Amino acid sequence: MHVTHTEIEVRYAETDQMGVVHHATYLVWFELGRTRFIKELGFSYPKMEENGVLAPVTDINISYKKPFRYGDTATIKTWLDDYSGLRAIYGYEIYNEQEELCITGTSSHVLVNKETFKPLIMKKVLPDWHMAYMDAMNPSRQER
Amino acid sequence: MHVTHTEIEVRYAETDQMGVVHHATYLVWFELGRTRFIKELGFSYPKMEENGVLAPVTDINISYKKPFRYGDTATIKTWLDDYSGLRAIYGYEIYNEQEELCITGTSSHVLVNKETFKPLIMKKVLPDWHMAYMDAMNPSRQER
Amino acid sequence: MHVTHTEIEVRYAETDQMGVVHHATYLVWFELGRTRFIKELGFSYPKMEENGVLAPVTDINISYKKPFRYGDTATIKTWLDDYSGLRAIYGYEIYNEQEELCITGTSSHVLVNKETFKPLIMKKVLPDWHMAYMDAMNPSRQER
Amino acid sequence: MHVTHTEIEVRYAETDQMGVVHHATYLVWFELGRTRFIKELGFSYPKMEENGVLAPVTDINISYKKPFRYGDTATIKTWLDDYSGLRAIYGYEIYNEQEELCITGTSSHVLVNKETFKPLIMKKVLPDWHMAYMDAMNPSRQER
Repeated sequence: MHVTHTEIEVRYAETDQMGVVHHATYLVWFELGRTRFIKELGFSYPKMEENGVLAPVTDINISYKKPFRYGDTATIKTWLDDYSGLRAIYGYEIYNEQEELCITGTSSHVLVNKETFKPLIMKKVLPDWHMAYMDAMNPSRQER
Repeated sequence: MHVTHTEIEVRYAETDQMGVVHHATYLVWFELGRTRFIKELGFSYPKMEENGVLAPVTDINISYKKPFRYGDTATIKTWLDDYSGLRAIYGYEIYNEQEELCITGTSSHVLVNKETFKPLIMKKVLPDWHMAYMDAMNPSRQER
Repeated sequence: MHVTHTEIEVRYAETDQMGVVHHATYLVWFELGRTRFIKELGFSYPKMEENGVLAPVTDINISYKKPFRYGDTATIKTWLDDYSGLRAIYGYEIYNEQEELCITGTSSHVLVNKETFKPLIMKKVLPDWHMAYMDAMNPSRQER
Repeated sequence: MHVTHTEIEVRYAETDQMGVVHHATYLVWFELGRTRFIKELGFSYPKMEENGVLAPVTDINISYKKPFRYGDTATIKTWLDDYSGLRAIYGYEIYNEQEELCITGTSSHVLVNKETFKPLIMKKVLPDWHMAYMDAMNPSRQER
Protein backbone atom coordinates (compact mmCIF):
# COMPACT_ATOMS: atom_id res chain seq x y z
CA MET A 1 0.00 0.00 0.00
CA HIS A 2 1.33 3.41 -0.96
CA VAL A 3 1.52 5.80 2.02
CA THR A 4 2.47 9.46 1.48
CA HIS A 5 4.31 11.44 4.16
CA THR A 6 3.68 15.20 4.24
CA GLU A 7 5.45 17.49 6.72
CA ILE A 8 3.72 20.62 8.00
CA GLU A 9 4.92 23.36 10.34
CA VAL A 10 2.05 24.68 12.47
CA ARG A 11 1.05 28.22 11.45
CA TYR A 12 0.32 30.83 14.12
CA ALA A 13 -3.01 31.62 12.43
CA GLU A 14 -4.02 27.96 12.81
CA THR A 15 -4.04 28.20 16.63
CA ASP A 16 -7.05 29.32 18.66
CA GLN A 17 -7.43 30.72 22.17
CA MET A 18 -7.13 27.19 23.62
CA GLY A 19 -3.45 27.59 22.67
CA VAL A 20 -3.62 24.67 20.24
CA VAL A 21 -4.43 24.16 16.55
CA HIS A 22 -8.15 24.76 15.89
CA HIS A 23 -9.89 21.46 15.15
CA ALA A 24 -11.19 22.54 11.71
CA THR A 25 -7.59 23.06 10.53
CA TYR A 26 -6.90 19.33 10.36
CA LEU A 27 -9.38 19.00 7.46
CA VAL A 28 -7.12 21.42 5.58
CA TRP A 29 -4.09 19.30 6.52
CA PHE A 30 -5.89 16.16 5.26
CA GLU A 31 -6.34 18.06 1.98
CA LEU A 32 -2.59 18.74 1.82
CA GLY A 33 -1.89 15.05 2.40
CA ARG A 34 -4.39 14.13 -0.33
CA THR A 35 -2.86 16.56 -2.84
CA ARG A 36 0.59 15.10 -2.20
CA PHE A 37 -0.70 11.49 -2.39
CA ILE A 38 -2.24 12.18 -5.80
CA LYS A 39 0.97 13.88 -6.99
CA GLU A 40 3.10 10.92 -5.90
CA LEU A 41 0.88 8.60 -7.95
CA GLY A 42 1.64 10.80 -10.96
CA PHE A 43 -1.59 12.78 -11.21
CA SER A 44 -2.46 16.44 -10.61
CA TYR A 45 -5.50 17.65 -8.69
CA PRO A 46 -5.17 21.23 -10.05
CA LYS A 47 -5.08 19.91 -13.68
CA MET A 48 -8.10 17.68 -13.05
CA GLU A 49 -10.13 20.74 -12.01
CA GLU A 50 -8.90 22.67 -15.05
CA ASN A 51 -10.35 19.82 -17.14
CA GLY A 52 -13.77 20.36 -15.57
CA VAL A 53 -13.76 17.55 -12.99
CA LEU A 54 -14.23 18.18 -9.25
CA ALA A 55 -13.81 15.68 -6.38
CA PRO A 56 -15.96 17.08 -3.54
CA VAL A 57 -15.94 15.52 -0.08
CA THR A 58 -19.08 13.56 0.87
CA ASP A 59 -18.11 12.38 4.38
CA ILE A 60 -15.41 12.99 6.94
CA ASN A 61 -14.69 11.19 10.21
CA ILE A 62 -11.99 12.57 12.43
CA SER A 63 -10.69 11.71 15.92
CA TYR A 64 -8.60 14.10 17.99
CA LYS A 65 -6.25 12.35 20.41
CA LYS A 66 -3.55 14.94 21.08
CA PRO A 67 -3.37 18.60 20.07
CA PHE A 68 -0.67 20.37 18.03
CA ARG A 69 0.85 23.70 19.08
CA TYR A 70 2.61 26.58 17.31
CA GLY A 71 6.26 25.54 16.91
CA ASP A 72 5.38 21.87 16.28
CA THR A 73 6.02 19.98 13.05
CA ALA A 74 3.38 17.44 11.99
CA THR A 75 3.69 14.46 9.65
CA ILE A 76 0.54 13.45 7.78
CA LYS A 77 0.38 9.86 6.51
CA THR A 78 -2.13 9.53 3.66
CA TRP A 79 -3.27 6.43 1.76
CA LEU A 80 -6.15 5.15 -0.34
CA ASP A 81 -8.36 3.29 2.12
CA ASP A 82 -11.04 2.11 -0.27
CA TYR A 83 -11.94 2.57 -3.92
CA SER A 84 -15.03 1.13 -5.49
CA GLY A 85 -14.84 2.72 -8.93
CA LEU A 86 -17.32 5.36 -7.78
CA ARG A 87 -16.18 6.50 -4.38
CA ALA A 88 -12.60 7.00 -3.13
CA ILE A 89 -11.94 6.92 0.62
CA TYR A 90 -8.63 8.27 1.87
CA GLY A 91 -7.17 7.43 5.28
CA TYR A 92 -5.08 9.81 7.38
CA GLU A 93 -2.87 9.65 10.46
CA ILE A 94 -1.11 12.71 11.81
CA TYR A 95 1.96 12.24 14.01
CA ASN A 96 3.96 14.71 16.10
CA GLU A 97 7.76 14.86 16.36
CA GLN A 98 7.68 12.32 19.21
CA GLU A 99 5.98 9.94 16.72
CA GLU A 100 2.79 9.92 18.77
CA LEU A 101 -0.42 9.39 16.81
CA CYS A 102 -2.40 12.63 17.37
CA ILE A 103 -5.15 12.73 14.73
CA THR A 104 -6.83 10.00 12.66
CA GLY A 105 -9.50 10.29 10.00
CA THR A 106 -11.01 9.34 6.67
CA SER A 107 -12.57 11.36 3.84
CA SER A 108 -14.88 10.08 1.09
CA HIS A 109 -14.99 11.68 -2.36
CA VAL A 110 -16.95 11.36 -5.58
CA LEU A 111 -16.32 12.97 -8.96
CA VAL A 112 -18.71 15.58 -10.34
CA ASN A 113 -18.90 17.85 -13.38
CA LYS A 114 -17.59 21.34 -12.56
CA GLU A 115 -20.53 23.16 -14.15
CA THR A 116 -23.47 20.91 -13.31
CA PHE A 117 -22.19 19.16 -10.12
CA LYS A 118 -23.62 15.93 -11.64
CA PRO A 119 -21.78 12.68 -10.75
CA LEU A 120 -19.12 11.33 -13.11
CA ILE A 121 -17.72 7.78 -13.44
CA MET A 122 -13.96 7.86 -12.76
CA LYS A 123 -13.34 4.93 -15.12
CA LYS A 124 -14.78 6.99 -18.00
CA VAL A 125 -13.46 10.49 -17.32
CA LEU A 126 -10.08 9.57 -15.80
CA PRO A 127 -9.29 6.01 -16.98
CA ASP A 128 -5.54 6.13 -16.07
CA TRP A 129 -6.30 7.42 -12.62
CA HIS A 130 -8.96 4.71 -12.22
CA MET A 131 -6.40 2.02 -13.11
CA ALA A 132 -3.86 3.42 -10.66
CA TYR A 133 -6.46 3.40 -7.88
CA MET A 134 -7.56 -0.15 -8.72
CA ASP A 135 -3.91 -1.18 -8.50
CA ALA A 136 -3.48 0.73 -5.25
CA MET A 137 -6.33 -1.37 -3.77
CA ASN A 138 -4.96 -4.66 -5.18
CA PRO A 139 -1.22 -4.27 -4.91
CA SER A 140 -0.68 -8.01 -5.52
CA ARG A 141 -1.95 -7.57 -9.08
CA GLN A 142 0.76 -5.04 -9.67
CA GLU A 143 3.41 -7.34 -8.27
CA ARG A 144 2.60 -10.22 -10.56
CA MET B 1 -35.64 18.10 23.10
CA HIS B 2 -34.25 21.59 22.83
CA VAL B 3 -33.15 22.47 19.27
CA THR B 4 -31.37 25.78 18.59
CA HIS B 5 -31.71 27.57 15.24
CA THR B 6 -28.75 29.71 14.12
CA GLU B 7 -28.83 31.72 10.89
CA ILE B 8 -25.64 32.35 8.94
CA GLU B 9 -24.97 34.34 5.78
CA VAL B 10 -22.23 32.70 3.71
CA ARG B 11 -19.01 34.76 3.73
CA TYR B 12 -17.04 35.28 0.52
CA ALA B 13 -13.86 34.12 2.27
CA GLU B 14 -15.61 30.82 3.10
CA THR B 15 -15.87 29.83 -0.57
CA ASP B 16 -13.14 28.01 -2.48
CA GLN B 17 -12.34 27.69 -6.18
CA MET B 18 -15.06 25.04 -6.53
CA GLY B 19 -17.42 28.03 -6.18
CA VAL B 20 -18.95 26.63 -2.99
CA VAL B 21 -18.26 26.84 0.75
CA HIS B 22 -15.04 24.97 1.64
CA HIS B 23 -15.86 21.76 3.52
CA ALA B 24 -13.77 22.66 6.61
CA THR B 25 -15.95 25.75 7.14
CA TYR B 26 -18.92 23.71 8.35
CA LEU B 27 -16.97 22.69 11.46
CA VAL B 28 -16.82 26.41 12.28
CA TRP B 29 -20.58 26.68 11.66
CA PHE B 30 -21.18 23.71 13.99
CA GLU B 31 -19.20 25.69 16.59
CA LEU B 32 -21.50 28.69 16.10
CA GLY B 33 -24.53 26.45 16.58
CA ARG B 34 -22.98 24.96 19.72
CA THR B 35 -22.19 28.39 21.20
CA ARG B 36 -25.81 29.47 20.63
CA PHE B 37 -27.22 26.21 22.02
CA ILE B 38 -25.23 26.66 25.23
CA LYS B 39 -26.32 30.31 25.47
CA GLU B 40 -30.00 29.37 25.07
CA LEU B 41 -29.63 26.91 27.96
CA GLY B 42 -28.40 29.80 30.09
CA PHE B 43 -24.65 29.11 30.10
CA SER B 44 -21.67 30.87 28.55
CA TYR B 45 -18.86 29.13 26.71
CA PRO B 46 -16.55 32.19 26.93
CA LYS B 47 -17.09 32.40 30.73
CA MET B 48 -16.41 28.68 31.15
CA GLU B 49 -13.01 29.13 29.50
CA GLU B 50 -12.27 32.16 31.67
CA ASN B 51 -12.85 29.86 34.64
CA GLY B 52 -10.14 27.50 33.42
CA VAL B 53 -12.31 24.82 31.79
CA LEU B 54 -12.00 23.85 28.11
CA ALA B 55 -14.29 21.56 26.08
CA PRO B 56 -12.11 20.25 23.23
CA VAL B 57 -13.55 18.17 20.42
CA THR B 58 -12.64 14.47 20.47
CA ASP B 59 -14.55 13.25 17.37
CA ILE B 60 -16.44 14.72 14.44
CA ASN B 61 -18.55 12.99 11.80
CA ILE B 62 -19.90 15.09 8.96
CA SER B 63 -21.82 14.32 5.76
CA TYR B 64 -22.04 16.74 2.85
CA LYS B 65 -25.22 16.38 0.81
CA LYS B 66 -25.56 19.76 -0.93
CA PRO B 67 -23.13 22.69 -1.06
CA PHE B 68 -23.73 26.29 0.02
CA ARG B 69 -22.76 29.27 -2.13
CA TYR B 70 -21.94 32.93 -1.51
CA GLY B 71 -25.26 34.78 -1.23
CA ASP B 72 -26.99 31.86 0.54
CA THR B 73 -28.34 31.95 4.09
CA ALA B 74 -27.97 28.76 6.14
CA THR B 75 -29.89 27.60 9.22
CA ILE B 76 -28.03 25.37 11.67
CA LYS B 77 -30.13 23.18 13.95
CA THR B 78 -28.17 22.13 17.04
CA TRP B 79 -29.16 19.80 19.88
CA LEU B 80 -27.64 17.62 22.59
CA ASP B 81 -27.55 14.16 21.05
CA ASP B 82 -26.07 12.26 23.97
CA TYR B 83 -24.67 13.07 27.41
CA SER B 84 -23.14 10.47 29.68
CA GLY B 85 -21.81 12.71 32.44
CA LEU B 86 -18.36 12.55 30.87
CA ARG B 87 -18.86 13.08 27.17
CA ALA B 88 -21.32 15.43 25.44
CA ILE B 89 -22.30 14.71 21.83
CA TYR B 90 -24.00 17.49 19.86
CA GLY B 91 -26.03 16.87 16.71
CA TYR B 92 -26.25 19.28 13.77
CA GLU B 93 -28.34 19.72 10.64
CA ILE B 94 -27.77 22.60 8.25
CA TYR B 95 -30.60 23.66 5.94
CA ASN B 96 -30.68 26.06 3.00
CA GLU B 97 -33.41 28.61 2.26
CA GLN B 98 -35.38 25.96 0.33
CA GLU B 99 -35.41 23.94 3.58
CA GLU B 100 -33.31 21.20 2.02
CA LEU B 101 -31.05 19.28 4.41
CA CYS B 102 -27.51 20.03 3.15
CA ILE B 103 -25.10 19.05 5.94
CA THR B 104 -25.43 16.67 8.92
CA GLY B 105 -22.97 15.87 11.66
CA THR B 106 -22.09 15.22 15.27
CA SER B 107 -19.27 16.38 17.52
CA SER B 108 -18.08 14.79 20.79
CA HIS B 109 -16.55 16.83 23.60
CA VAL B 110 -14.94 16.25 26.97
CA LEU B 111 -13.93 18.79 29.63
CA VAL B 112 -10.28 19.41 30.45
CA ASN B 113 -8.27 21.72 32.67
CA LYS B 114 -7.03 24.76 30.71
CA GLU B 115 -3.46 24.53 32.02
CA THR B 116 -2.89 20.78 32.24
CA PHE B 117 -5.34 19.50 29.58
CA LYS B 118 -6.26 16.77 32.13
CA PRO B 119 -9.88 15.49 32.04
CA LEU B 120 -12.49 17.02 34.36
CA ILE B 121 -15.83 15.62 35.56
CA MET B 122 -18.63 17.97 34.45
CA LYS B 123 -20.75 17.05 37.48
CA LYS B 124 -17.99 18.35 39.77
CA VAL B 125 -16.72 21.43 37.94
CA LEU B 126 -20.00 22.59 36.38
CA PRO B 127 -22.83 21.04 38.45
CA ASP B 128 -25.61 23.34 37.14
CA TRP B 129 -24.59 22.73 33.56
CA HIS B 130 -24.47 18.98 34.30
CA MET B 131 -28.05 19.08 35.65
CA ALA B 132 -29.28 21.01 32.61
CA TYR B 133 -27.69 18.44 30.27
CA MET B 134 -29.15 15.52 32.26
CA ASP B 135 -32.55 17.19 31.93
CA ALA B 136 -31.97 17.82 28.23
CA MET B 137 -31.45 14.06 27.78
CA ASN B 138 -34.48 13.16 29.95
CA PRO B 139 -37.00 15.87 29.17
CA SER B 140 -39.81 13.88 30.84
CA ARG B 141 -38.12 14.34 34.21
CA GLN B 142 -38.32 18.07 33.74
CA GLU B 143 -41.98 17.94 32.87
CA ARG B 144 -43.01 16.08 36.03
CA MET C 1 -22.54 60.04 3.16
CA HIS C 2 -24.05 56.59 3.45
CA VAL C 3 -22.51 54.52 6.29
CA THR C 4 -23.49 50.88 6.77
CA HIS C 5 -23.50 49.23 10.21
CA THR C 6 -22.80 45.49 10.34
CA GLU C 7 -22.87 43.54 13.61
CA ILE C 8 -20.63 40.52 14.09
CA GLU C 9 -20.26 38.08 16.98
CA VAL C 10 -16.66 36.91 17.32
CA ARG C 11 -16.26 33.26 16.32
CA TYR C 12 -14.10 30.93 18.40
CA ALA C 13 -12.21 29.85 15.27
CA GLU C 14 -11.28 33.50 14.66
CA THR C 15 -9.18 33.67 17.82
CA ASP C 16 -5.52 32.68 18.00
CA GLN C 17 -3.24 31.64 20.87
CA MET C 18 -2.81 35.30 21.85
CA GLY C 19 -6.41 34.95 23.12
CA VAL C 20 -7.67 37.59 20.68
CA VAL C 21 -9.03 37.67 17.12
CA HIS C 22 -6.25 36.88 14.61
CA HIS C 23 -5.30 40.03 12.68
CA ALA C 24 -6.04 38.55 9.23
CA THR C 25 -9.68 38.01 10.28
CA TYR C 26 -10.48 41.73 10.09
CA LEU C 27 -10.00 41.66 6.31
CA VAL C 28 -12.83 39.13 6.23
CA TRP C 29 -14.93 41.43 8.44
CA PHE C 30 -14.20 44.35 6.07
CA GLU C 31 -15.55 42.10 3.31
CA LEU C 32 -18.76 41.53 5.30
CA GLY C 33 -19.14 45.30 5.74
CA ARG C 34 -18.57 45.83 2.01
CA THR C 35 -21.13 43.18 1.02
CA ARG C 36 -23.72 44.84 3.29
CA PHE C 37 -22.87 48.34 2.05
CA ILE C 38 -23.41 47.25 -1.57
CA LYS C 39 -26.68 45.53 -0.61
CA GLU C 40 -27.98 48.66 1.13
CA LEU C 41 -27.29 50.66 -2.03
CA GLY C 42 -29.49 48.21 -3.89
CA PHE C 43 -26.88 46.08 -5.64
CA SER C 44 -25.72 42.48 -5.22
CA TYR C 45 -22.08 41.39 -5.15
CA PRO C 46 -22.97 37.70 -5.73
CA LYS C 47 -25.06 38.65 -8.83
CA MET C 48 -22.25 40.85 -10.18
CA GLU C 49 -19.91 37.84 -10.11
CA GLU C 50 -22.53 35.62 -11.76
CA ASN C 51 -22.53 38.19 -14.59
CA GLY C 52 -18.80 37.72 -15.09
CA VAL C 53 -17.49 40.78 -13.24
CA LEU C 54 -15.06 40.54 -10.32
CA ALA C 55 -13.91 43.34 -7.97
CA PRO C 56 -10.52 42.18 -6.64
CA VAL C 57 -8.70 44.10 -3.92
CA THR C 58 -5.61 46.04 -5.05
CA ASP C 59 -4.56 47.63 -1.74
CA ILE C 60 -5.41 47.37 1.95
CA ASN C 61 -4.29 49.54 4.86
CA ILE C 62 -5.30 48.48 8.34
CA SER C 63 -4.51 49.75 11.85
CA TYR C 64 -5.07 47.67 14.97
CA LYS C 65 -5.77 49.74 18.08
CA LYS C 66 -7.58 47.32 20.38
CA PRO C 67 -8.17 43.58 20.02
CA PHE C 68 -11.48 41.70 20.00
CA ARG C 69 -12.09 38.56 22.06
CA TYR C 70 -14.44 35.57 21.85
CA GLY C 71 -17.74 36.65 23.39
CA ASP C 72 -17.46 40.21 21.99
CA THR C 73 -19.82 41.75 19.45
CA ALA C 74 -18.26 44.08 16.87
CA THR C 75 -19.90 46.82 14.77
CA ILE C 76 -18.31 47.53 11.38
CA LYS C 77 -18.98 50.95 9.85
CA THR C 78 -18.44 50.89 6.08
CA TRP C 79 -18.60 53.71 3.54
CA LEU C 80 -17.39 54.70 0.08
CA ASP C 81 -14.25 56.73 0.75
CA ASP C 82 -13.33 57.57 -2.84
CA TYR C 83 -14.55 56.69 -6.31
CA SER C 84 -12.85 57.84 -9.46
CA GLY C 85 -14.84 55.92 -12.04
CA LEU C 86 -12.06 53.32 -12.17
CA ARG C 87 -11.13 52.59 -8.59
CA ALA C 88 -13.43 52.35 -5.55
CA ILE C 89 -11.95 52.86 -2.08
CA TYR C 90 -14.00 51.74 0.91
CA GLY C 91 -13.42 52.99 4.46
CA TYR C 92 -13.94 50.91 7.60
CA GLU C 93 -14.12 51.47 11.34
CA ILE C 94 -14.76 48.62 13.77
CA TYR C 95 -16.16 49.42 17.22
CA ASN C 96 -16.60 47.26 20.30
CA GLU C 97 -19.64 47.25 22.61
CA GLN C 98 -18.10 50.09 24.66
CA GLU C 99 -18.11 52.13 21.41
CA GLU C 100 -14.32 52.27 21.38
CA LEU C 101 -12.72 52.48 17.94
CA CYS C 102 -10.65 49.27 17.68
CA ILE C 103 -9.79 48.79 13.99
CA THR C 104 -9.59 51.24 11.05
CA GLY C 105 -8.78 50.60 7.42
CA THR C 106 -9.38 51.12 3.72
CA SER C 107 -9.53 48.76 0.75
CA SER C 108 -9.14 49.67 -2.95
CA HIS C 109 -10.86 47.72 -5.71
CA VAL C 110 -10.98 47.62 -9.48
CA LEU C 111 -13.29 45.68 -11.77
CA VAL C 112 -11.97 42.86 -13.94
CA ASN C 113 -13.38 40.28 -16.32
CA LYS C 114 -13.95 36.93 -14.56
CA GLU C 115 -12.29 34.86 -17.30
CA THR C 116 -9.42 37.11 -18.44
CA PHE C 117 -8.80 39.19 -15.27
CA LYS C 118 -8.54 42.21 -17.66
CA PRO C 119 -9.70 45.60 -16.27
CA LEU C 120 -13.26 46.77 -16.91
CA ILE C 121 -14.73 50.31 -16.81
CA MET C 122 -17.51 50.41 -14.20
CA LYS C 123 -19.40 53.09 -16.16
CA LYS C 124 -19.69 50.71 -19.11
CA VAL C 125 -20.31 47.34 -17.44
CA LEU C 126 -22.35 48.51 -14.43
CA PRO C 127 -23.78 51.95 -15.36
CA ASP C 128 -26.41 52.07 -12.55
CA TRP C 129 -23.86 51.09 -9.96
CA HIS C 130 -21.50 53.76 -11.37
CA MET C 131 -24.22 56.43 -11.01
CA ALA C 132 -24.96 55.38 -7.43
CA TYR C 133 -21.26 55.61 -6.55
CA MET C 134 -20.91 59.03 -8.22
CA ASP C 135 -23.89 60.18 -6.16
CA ALA C 136 -22.40 58.66 -3.02
CA MET C 137 -19.28 60.79 -3.56
CA ASN C 138 -21.31 63.96 -4.33
CA PRO C 139 -24.28 63.74 -2.04
CA SER C 140 -25.21 67.39 -2.70
CA ARG C 141 -26.04 66.50 -6.29
CA GLN C 142 -28.59 64.02 -5.02
CA GLU C 143 -30.13 66.54 -2.69
CA ARG C 144 -30.77 69.15 -5.34
CA MET D 1 20.51 43.39 4.90
CA HIS D 2 19.31 39.92 5.81
CA VAL D 3 16.47 38.70 3.56
CA THR D 4 14.72 35.40 4.30
CA HIS D 5 13.22 33.26 1.53
CA THR D 6 10.21 31.12 2.45
CA GLU D 7 8.59 28.77 -0.08
CA ILE D 8 4.87 28.04 0.11
CA GLU D 9 2.65 25.75 -1.94
CA VAL D 10 -0.83 27.24 -2.34
CA ARG D 11 -3.44 25.30 -0.35
CA TYR D 12 -6.83 24.50 -1.89
CA ALA D 13 -8.57 25.95 1.17
CA GLU D 14 -6.77 29.26 0.56
CA THR D 15 -8.58 29.83 -2.74
CA ASP D 16 -11.96 31.53 -3.04
CA GLN D 17 -14.66 31.47 -5.71
CA MET D 18 -12.66 33.99 -7.79
CA GLY D 19 -10.40 30.98 -8.45
CA VAL D 20 -7.42 32.67 -6.78
CA VAL D 21 -5.97 32.87 -3.27
CA HIS D 22 -8.23 34.93 -0.98
CA HIS D 23 -6.62 38.29 -0.21
CA ALA D 24 -6.65 37.80 3.60
CA THR D 25 -4.44 34.70 3.20
CA TYR D 26 -1.36 36.78 2.35
CA LEU D 27 -1.32 38.17 5.91
CA VAL D 28 -0.90 34.57 7.06
CA TRP D 29 1.92 34.11 4.53
CA PHE D 30 3.60 37.29 5.83
CA GLU D 31 3.44 35.67 9.27
CA LEU D 32 5.18 32.56 7.94
CA GLY D 33 7.91 34.75 6.43
CA ARG D 34 8.28 36.61 9.75
CA THR D 35 8.54 33.37 11.77
CA ARG D 36 11.28 32.13 9.42
CA PHE D 37 13.12 35.47 9.47
CA ILE D 38 13.22 35.42 13.27
CA LYS D 39 14.38 31.78 13.27
CA GLU D 40 17.22 32.56 10.83
CA LEU D 41 18.40 35.32 13.16
CA GLY D 42 18.63 32.73 15.92
CA PHE D 43 15.47 33.53 17.90
CA SER D 44 12.16 31.71 18.42
CA TYR D 45 8.75 33.35 18.25
CA PRO D 46 7.03 30.38 20.00
CA LYS D 47 9.57 30.57 22.90
CA MET D 48 9.10 34.34 23.21
CA GLU D 49 5.37 33.81 23.75
CA GLU D 50 6.03 31.04 26.29
CA ASN D 51 8.07 33.62 28.19
CA GLY D 52 5.06 35.94 28.38
CA VAL D 53 5.90 38.36 25.56
CA LEU D 54 3.61 38.96 22.58
CA ALA D 55 4.34 40.94 19.40
CA PRO D 56 0.93 42.01 18.08
CA VAL D 57 0.53 43.73 14.71
CA THR D 58 -0.32 47.44 14.86
CA ASP D 59 -0.44 48.25 11.11
CA ILE D 60 -0.41 46.43 7.81
CA ASN D 61 -0.13 47.80 4.27
CA ILE D 62 -0.49 45.37 1.40
CA SER D 63 -0.64 45.73 -2.39
CA TYR D 64 -1.96 43.02 -4.66
CA LYS D 65 -0.44 43.04 -8.15
CA LYS D 66 -0.98 39.51 -9.40
CA PRO D 67 -2.99 36.66 -7.87
CA PHE D 68 -1.79 33.17 -6.91
CA ARG D 69 -3.67 30.00 -7.85
CA TYR D 70 -3.90 26.45 -6.50
CA GLY D 71 -0.92 24.54 -7.89
CA ASP D 72 1.41 27.59 -7.66
CA THR D 73 4.47 27.84 -5.44
CA ALA D 74 5.17 31.24 -3.86
CA THR D 75 8.43 32.65 -2.49
CA ILE D 76 8.12 35.19 0.33
CA LYS D 77 11.07 37.53 0.83
CA THR D 78 11.08 38.96 4.37
CA TRP D 79 13.38 41.54 5.93
CA LEU D 80 13.52 44.05 8.79
CA ASP D 81 12.49 47.33 7.19
CA ASP D 82 12.79 49.57 10.25
CA TYR D 83 13.51 49.20 13.94
CA SER D 84 13.40 52.04 16.37
CA GLY D 85 13.87 50.17 19.64
CA LEU D 86 10.12 50.27 20.18
CA ARG D 87 8.54 49.33 16.91
CA ALA D 88 9.71 46.73 14.37
CA ILE D 89 8.55 47.04 10.77
CA TYR D 90 8.98 44.02 8.50
CA GLY D 91 8.95 44.24 4.70
CA TYR D 92 7.59 41.52 2.40
CA GLU D 93 7.65 40.70 -1.30
CA ILE D 94 5.96 37.59 -2.67
CA TYR D 95 7.11 36.19 -6.02
CA ASN D 96 5.65 33.49 -8.26
CA GLU D 97 7.62 30.78 -10.08
CA GLN D 98 8.13 33.15 -13.04
CA GLU D 99 9.88 35.51 -10.58
CA GLU D 100 7.17 38.13 -11.03
CA LEU D 101 6.52 40.36 -8.03
CA CYS D 102 2.88 39.60 -7.05
CA ILE D 103 2.36 40.94 -3.53
CA THR D 104 4.18 43.61 -1.49
CA GLY D 105 3.58 44.78 2.06
CA THR D 106 4.80 45.83 5.48
CA SER D 107 3.70 45.00 9.01
CA SER D 108 4.44 46.98 12.20
CA HIS D 109 4.75 45.30 15.59
CA VAL D 110 5.22 46.27 19.22
CA LEU D 111 5.90 44.08 22.24
CA VAL D 112 3.31 43.67 24.97
CA ASN D 113 2.91 41.66 28.16
CA LYS D 114 0.89 38.47 27.54
CA GLU D 115 -1.39 38.96 30.56
CA THR D 116 -1.88 42.74 30.64
CA PHE D 117 -1.30 43.64 26.95
CA LYS D 118 0.78 46.59 28.28
CA PRO D 119 3.73 47.74 26.11
CA LEU D 120 7.21 46.37 26.78
CA ILE D 121 10.62 47.79 25.79
CA MET D 122 12.45 45.25 23.62
CA LYS D 123 15.86 46.41 24.87
CA LYS D 124 14.83 45.46 28.41
CA VAL D 125 12.86 42.25 27.92
CA LEU D 126 14.79 40.81 24.96
CA PRO D 127 18.24 42.49 24.97
CA ASP D 128 19.92 39.99 22.61
CA TRP D 129 17.11 40.26 20.13
CA HIS D 130 17.29 44.07 20.40
CA MET D 131 21.02 43.99 19.57
CA ALA D 132 20.46 41.70 16.59
CA TYR D 133 17.78 44.07 15.25
CA MET D 134 19.99 47.13 15.78
CA ASP D 135 22.71 45.33 13.83
CA ALA D 136 20.24 44.33 11.14
CA MET D 137 19.43 48.04 10.66
CA ASN D 138 23.14 49.08 10.70
CA PRO D 139 24.90 46.25 8.95
CA SER D 140 28.12 48.31 8.58
CA ARG D 141 28.55 48.24 12.37
CA GLN D 142 28.59 44.48 12.25
CA GLU D 143 31.20 44.43 9.51
CA ARG D 144 33.69 46.60 11.33
